[in-house]
Amino acid sequence: MINVTLKDGTIKEIEQGTTVLEVAKMLSEGLARVACAGKLNNKLVDIREKIEQDSQLEILTFNDEDGKWAFRHTSAHILAQAVKNLYPNVKLAIGPAIENGFYYDFDSEKHFDEKELTKIEAEMKKIVKAKFEITTFELPKDEAIKKLKEMDEPYKVELVEELPEGERITFYQQGDFIDLCAGPHLLNTKSVEAFKLLSCAGAYWRGNEKNKMLYRIYGTSFNKKADLATHLEQLEEAKKRDHNKLGRELKLFTTDENIGQGLPLIMPKGARIIQTLQRWVEDTEESRGYLLTKTPNMAKPDLYKISGHWNHYKDGMFVIGDEEVDSEIIALRPMTCPFQFSIYNSDQHSYRDLPVRYSETATLCRNESSGEMHGLTRVRQFTLADGHIICTPEQLNTEFKEAVDLIIYLMKTMGIDKEISYRFSKWDSNNTEKYINNPEAWEKTQSIMKEILDELELDYVEAEDEAAFYGPKLDIQFRNVHGKEDTIITVQIDFALAERFDMTYIDSEGKKQRPYIVHRSSLGCYERTLGMLIEKYAGAFPTWLAPVAVKVLPISDKCADYAQEVVAELRRKKIRVEADYRTEKIGYKIREARMERVPYILVLGLDEQEKRTVNVRSRQRGEEGEASLDEFVARVANEIQTKYNYHDDITNEFAK
Amino acid sequence: MINVTLKDGTIKEIEQGTTVLEVAKMLSEGLARVACAGKLNNKLVDIREKIEQDSQLEILTFNDEDGKWAFRHTSAHILAQAVKNLYPNVKLAIGPAIENGFYYDFDSEKHFDEKELTKIEAEMKKIVKAKFEITTFELPKDEAIKKLKEMDEPYKVELVEELPEGERITFYQQGDFIDLCAGPHLLNTKSVEAFKLLSCAGAYWRGNEKNKMLYRIYGTSFNKKADLATHLEQLEEAKKRDHNKLGRELKLFTTDENIGQGLPLIMPKGARIIQTLQRWVEDTEESRGYLLTKTPNMAKPDLYKISGHWNHYKDGMFVIGDEEVDSEIIALRPMTCPFQFSIYNSDQHSYRDLPVRYSETATLCRNESSGEMHGLTRVRQFTLADGHIICTPEQLNTEFKEAVDLIIYLMKTMGIDKEISYRFSKWDSNNTEKYINNPEAWEKTQSIMKEILDELELDYVEAEDEAAFYGPKLDIQFRNVHGKEDTIITVQIDFALAERFDMTYIDSEGKKQRPYIVHRSSLGCYERTLGMLIEKYAGAFPTWLAPVAVKVLPISDKCADYAQEVVAELRRKKIRVEADYRTEKIGYKIREARMERVPYILVLGLDEQEKRTVNVRSRQRGEEGEASLDEFVARVANEIQTKYNYHDDITNEFAK
Repeated sequence: MINVTLKDGTIKEIEQGTTVLEVAKMLSEGLARVACAGKLNNKLVDIREKIEQDSQLEILTFNDEDGKWAFRHTSAHILAQAVKNLYPNVKLAIGPAIENGFYYDFDSEKHFDEKELTKIEAEMKKIVKAKFEITTFELPKDEAIKKLKEMDEPYKVELVEELPEGERITFYQQGDFIDLCAGPHLLNTKSVEAFKLLSCAGAYWRGNEKNKMLYRIYGTSFNKKADLATHLEQLEEAKKRDHNKLGRELKLFTTDENIGQGLPLIMPKGARIIQTLQRWVEDTEESRGYLLTKTPNMAKPDLYKISGHWNHYKDGMFVIGDEEVDSEIIALRPMTCPFQFSIYNSDQHSYRDLPVRYSETATLCRNESSGEMHGLTRVRQFTLADGHIICTPEQLNTEFKEAVDLIIYLMKTMGIDKEISYRFSKWDSNNTEKYINNPEAWEKTQSIMKEILDELELDYVEAEDEAAFYGPKLDIQFRNVHGKEDTIITVQIDFALAERFDMTYIDSEGKKQRPYIVHRSSLGCYERTLGMLIEKYAGAFPTWLAPVAVKVLPISDKCADYAQEVVAELRRKKIRVEADYRTEKIGYKIREARMERVPYILVLGLDEQEKRTVNVRSRQRGEEGEASLDEFVARVANEIQTKYNYHDDITNEFAK
Repeated sequence: MINVTLKDGTIKEIEQGTTVLEVAKMLSEGLARVACAGKLNNKLVDIREKIEQDSQLEILTFNDEDGKWAFRHTSAHILAQAVKNLYPNVKLAIGPAIENGFYYDFDSEKHFDEKELTKIEAEMKKIVKAKFEITTFELPKDEAIKKLKEMDEPYKVELVEELPEGERITFYQQGDFIDLCAGPHLLNTKSVEAFKLLSCAGAYWRGNEKNKMLYRIYGTSFNKKADLATHLEQLEEAKKRDHNKLGRELKLFTTDENIGQGLPLIMPKGARIIQTLQRWVEDTEESRGYLLTKTPNMAKPDLYKISGHWNHYKDGMFVIGDEEVDSEIIALRPMTCPFQFSIYNSDQHSYRDLPVRYSETATLCRNESSGEMHGLTRVRQFTLADGHIICTPEQLNTEFKEAVDLIIYLMKTMGIDKEISYRFSKWDSNNTEKYINNPEAWEKTQSIMKEILDELELDYVEAEDEAAFYGPKLDIQFRNVHGKEDTIITVQIDFALAERFDMTYIDSEGKKQRPYIVHRSSLGCYERTLGMLIEKYAGAFPTWLAPVAVKVLPISDKCADYAQEVVAELRRKKIRVEADYRTEKIGYKIREARMERVPYILVLGLDEQEKRTVNVRSRQRGEEGEASLDEFVARVANEIQTKYNYHDDITNEFAK
């Protein structure tokens, strides 16, 4: 007899060799029915695992992350079985569970498209209904290879061949379908009732573009049908809001394969939004004492060698020329820091001049790998609201807080303050390759930063091994419509680069001192921000950000002159306006303007012309009826000037 | 006897073998004294040249370009003779006349500096006073080489060795100084009384950086002392205004050798000027119907292959990666055209949508050779107010004129309209390598453009072989303080790229048509414009452009609070203001503010504080005395809002 200690602390005496499933059954039949896997002494195990000694045990269900993983892993096997039933010649690659679902990669002569997914789904349903028991067996390496060769699964053979001798090699079987797999898996295919195949994409074998391109079929599954339905609804909503789709439909940006991946072209309506944001950020920063700079997008390696980027970041940089051949090498910059430091160093500074706050609307380039690029959020060239504060140690606390305050002000005004979270990114003392190796300075700056974050009462998480190579940072995290989290802004304390660049100031006693440097963004990247705003508002931007605030629709040619007057009056007040003079039916013109998510539509007929009024349809309130032109202009001008954000007050069909 | 026909048409009968000088003497002794060279049957000849047959003849003096050239060429020989007198071991390279003067290159062990120039000048004066007669003789190639070897002049030997056999090889001699030279030259060193050595710089032998670095001594000379004095004064004035010097002194920009040549860093004050210009240009363009875009700074070669830039312009581009090694090549763009075309092509267009006018504040890169880079005017990365108008043939005339009208408005507002001239740049039908080879299209577009330019009544010159490869262009030329002319803006008609990019619109009959494209800038480059403005205003910018419009100087700490109030009030009205709270003497603070060329200085004491007034010193009018704060704020705000240009009304010490 051995003892297992359960999660709640109770201890069960069981026979040696009892399985996880049997323990679950002892606890309750209900639990055993929904058990997906076990956690034995903190290690994820199959539900069939035998317990051989005194242990800690947790029974995992779909509600546990790892339980969900096992559930979806089994779903992937059902997908594979269905594909093999339909197309016996297809070769299997790998099929793991992932966040929110699962996939399986197939080498298939047959072209898999949307229609095919429906067929495969139907076949999967049959497998679920067949209630196949899922069993597992082990084989030694040579026999495993022999079996997989017989099964004609070359990708699996390759995987096993690479395993070290003596490694435990397991197979799972359901019906006559057998797959090499480390598990864990459910007990029966019948559990996977609520599933859905979502899409099919290309994927290189082992993610290497030199290998064969395989078909990757994505799907998701849940333990309750209602949860699946909710999830699919959310996916639909996310799809509608996906900036990479909606941003193109609204003609905010486009791409061109002749130009390249990760290099979006911002179209006029998108460029107007970015222009509005940029002017607002630059003006706000000026009013907060920042000095704007405009520095080159490239430099010789000499500069990056001083900063350390050449050592720590060269692979992510675009480099022109070959050091062994060319007399001059130039590299596109991945950051602005050394350029602003160079401006600081072009002059002498006294403690009286500090803090010096530099800002720049900086174009930066990072050579992302092709798999990572996406829409406006993962690009190879981007425009960062960048900046560096050079200050005395005494000023560091205030300056850091001011930098965070500016970020919060910007996020609030844009209406995305509720979507962000905070992460305190620290170094890893074991990873000396990645960081400047000065433990004392790391400990000191990290404790300074922690103190500041606590004083700010920010609700942050701590993350090891996520710092910049020259110091700790506060990361502002944003979760996109697909639930993926990205760092959109950072505020960093730098204890190292002032020394490397020999930056100094003269203190009140006439002595040279090293300043601290705060690296910070305020808005983050303009391109990514545009992407976030598209998703946040489903394209229905607040009036101050909308590329067209008002659309003027004359009912007929007879009111065209009056329409022109109205347009001119709006433009005089700096309100962005478009008019639609086409001789289309007014209903058609209204529908089109609504699809463009324009905040205000003005319908102008002879009646309005005579009374010098406008007939207002607002995106938020619908038909509002007649208003005097002056009144309307004043209202919209005020909305723009105050950066009014309707979002929190009123819902509309596009942005809930 | 033979006949020579003079410039005025009169015919002189002379003996065969009469020299140009003798003909000049026949005409008048005065003319013979100032004659520098001759033009015989349209060929520049030495004044000693014998006339052997019936000919056209022109006697050239210093007032003729070629006469001036001979005069200064002789000046260069006097320089070389002086250097050889002082340092017999120096080896001679070449010494031509150039625009505004002459130079001579020397290979010298002795280091030539400013002090040395004074010594050399004194020696030159002796040579002029010695009144050496200048004579010439010819030698066959082998004897010429022998003689130059005896003289130990290896550079001259190299030059002669490369001459084809049978080429006429001439030498000139003055006193015991002999130099290999094609001439022409004056008759006597005495004529070069008014000269001045200006500077010494390094120059590679034959301009090739693989060769030895020589000393190049620059000088100038005139036929009248008064003209030399005027010229030197202008040079002094130009030096003071030189943006590459003054722009650094005023902290508008800097450079960093670790970053590289041709990559200036625009400092906060310079960046504010560029920001002001950029917003103004973008707003003006928006109000004229332009649609702003924001496209990537780089693309795959595929794009440039379609446009033809890969064939016609590759050497001027920064290319990342090697076509033979790398799977992906990216090139930094030297122009915006294909990027905006790509946006045009992302949608369908009807004749009703045309003209489409795209504008962009575009970052462009051109790989200039290191010798050509200079300050803010010749750089490798720059920001162009770029744009393209896509229109029907019927719209071309109006659109072109509107583009020129916009340029003239911008130049006038900046106050540099009087410094610009126009050039109509055409193709060269013989240079088929350089241009798209479609003679018919060239003739047609050139005649359209000529018609437009004539209708605009522009005072333009025509220039062959200066067109873009895809069409003719109007170049806006600017002459800098050193008298050097640069093209700052172009407006081009493009008949070729719409076809290459398959750009179309649907005409009123539903048929696909090719549009015309106007490539145009409005302001030109922002960096270069900043350079021009520095030189135009000697740093004393009009109030609307000044990085600091008002400087507030409290007399003592007691008025610091009031000073802060004044600053806040000015900022509320969007007036750029700085305050100097240091406890320095007020006279010192005023002097410093004046050196910064600030348009308005406000001196604030207890008296002003009590009455809530300001004591105004303006850059243009000097001490203006007391004014109410409100009055002053309104005045400056108005000056900024109307972009008032004091320059044409009132002079000041910095900008005349």
